[in-house]
Amino acid sequence: MTMGNTDAHAERGYSASKEQLLKRLRRVEGQVRGVEGMVVADRYCIDVITQISAIQAALDKVALGLLDEHAHHCVMGAADGDQGAKTQELMSAIGRLMKRG
Amino acid sequence: MTMGNTDAHAERGYSASKEQLLKRLRRVEGQVRGVEGMVVADRYCIDVITQISAIQAALDKVALGLLDEHAHHCVMGAADGDQGAKTQELMSAIGRLMKRG
Amino acid sequence: MTMGNTDAHAERGYSASKEQLLKRLRRVEGQVRGVEGMVVADRYCIDVITQISAIQAALDKVALGLLDEHAHHCVMGAADGDQGAKTQELMSAIGRLMKRG
Amino acid sequence: MTMGNTDAHAERGYSASKEQLLKRLRRVEGQVRGVEGMVVADRYCIDVITQISAIQAALDKVALGLLDEHAHHCVMGAADGDQGAKTQELMSAIGRLMKRG
Repeated sequence: MTMGNTDAHAERGYSASKEQLLKRLRRVEGQVRGVEGMVVADRYCIDVITQISAIQAALDKVALGLLDEHAHHCVMGAADGDQGAKTQELMSAIGRLMKRG
Repeated sequence: MTMGNTDAHAERGYSASKEQLLKRLRRVEGQVRGVEGMVVADRYCIDVITQISAIQAALDKVALGLLDEHAHHCVMGAADGDQGAKTQELMSAIGRLMKRG
Repeated sequence: MTMGNTDAHAERGYSASKEQLLKRLRRVEGQVRGVEGMVVADRYCIDVITQISAIQAALDKVALGLLDEHAHHCVMGAADGDQGAKTQELMSAIGRLMKRG
Repeated sequence: MTMGNTDAHAERGYSASKEQLLKRLRRVEGQVRGVEGMVVADRYCIDVITQISAIQAALDKVALGLLDEHAHHCVMGAADGDQGAKTQELMSAIGRLMKRG
């Protein structure tokens, strides 16, 4: 996951610089802590579940940013002989994301 | 989300006591921090994505535990006249989970 | 899946009469045949995948309609002693839907 | 979606020849018809939902096969100047699959 600088990514939608990814992940961490607080405070279940759905959506976005980086830098940048194996590996990762683990 | 004691839940698979939910959420919080560390350390994208899939699976389990609690205590326990609206609300929450936010 | 008449369901969002479910399923069947035609005609992959996403969204809606029916008629209508087992069974089904099989 | 012959794909896991894709899609079509029959026969909701989960899993596999083909032939095979836009388009398609339409 050696990623380029921010400028190079500005033009693409899903892609994200390392800083952007970390920012999103820290926000996710805060959201998870928020859900813990909701459970402690006996908040209404449906509201907690709605918040969990929002976290899942945020994690999907982080994963898509990583996939985009990976496709650009590791799959396309791979030597011709390695591209098949790299694409295979990428599809397995997408399959796990679609099935959520 | 006023939930009963642990004993009452031991017999059911998805259900979870408040303590169990908090334990799982704290573990998820730790997993998110772990992913942040992987990004900082420039770990291989596919490994980071695999870890994100694992977090999403863990959050799905938390959500199912909450849904189960909610179905038992808020939907079935509702007055007859409220059960329709409560079920509707439950289905909307399930729909958001399936679409991930 | 013994379902009531259409009138009784008109007021709820996800619920659907047997006729509505069949109509949606026949439309899904037509969409699948449409995708077969796209593959035969060598249509652009991304367009085929977009169409598959649309089919999955339609199937999710059918599943939510069934869940809603089931929650109303089989889970809440169950004898008190059976509601625990019925809710458990419902949660397992939701878990499979979230993981897609 | 101009795809190569079967031999070329035998070595890869997710990829599929045109014939294999059509075979899988026809099986999905049959599964959807099977679900229609289950609804007509008033079969138990949970069994119908389980069958729908199986169809979603089968469609996910078809989509992954198409993504794999696309990544190999359209994204990597694209002229250097087009690879950015092609990857972007691919990520959008994956995003729709993850959100199911």
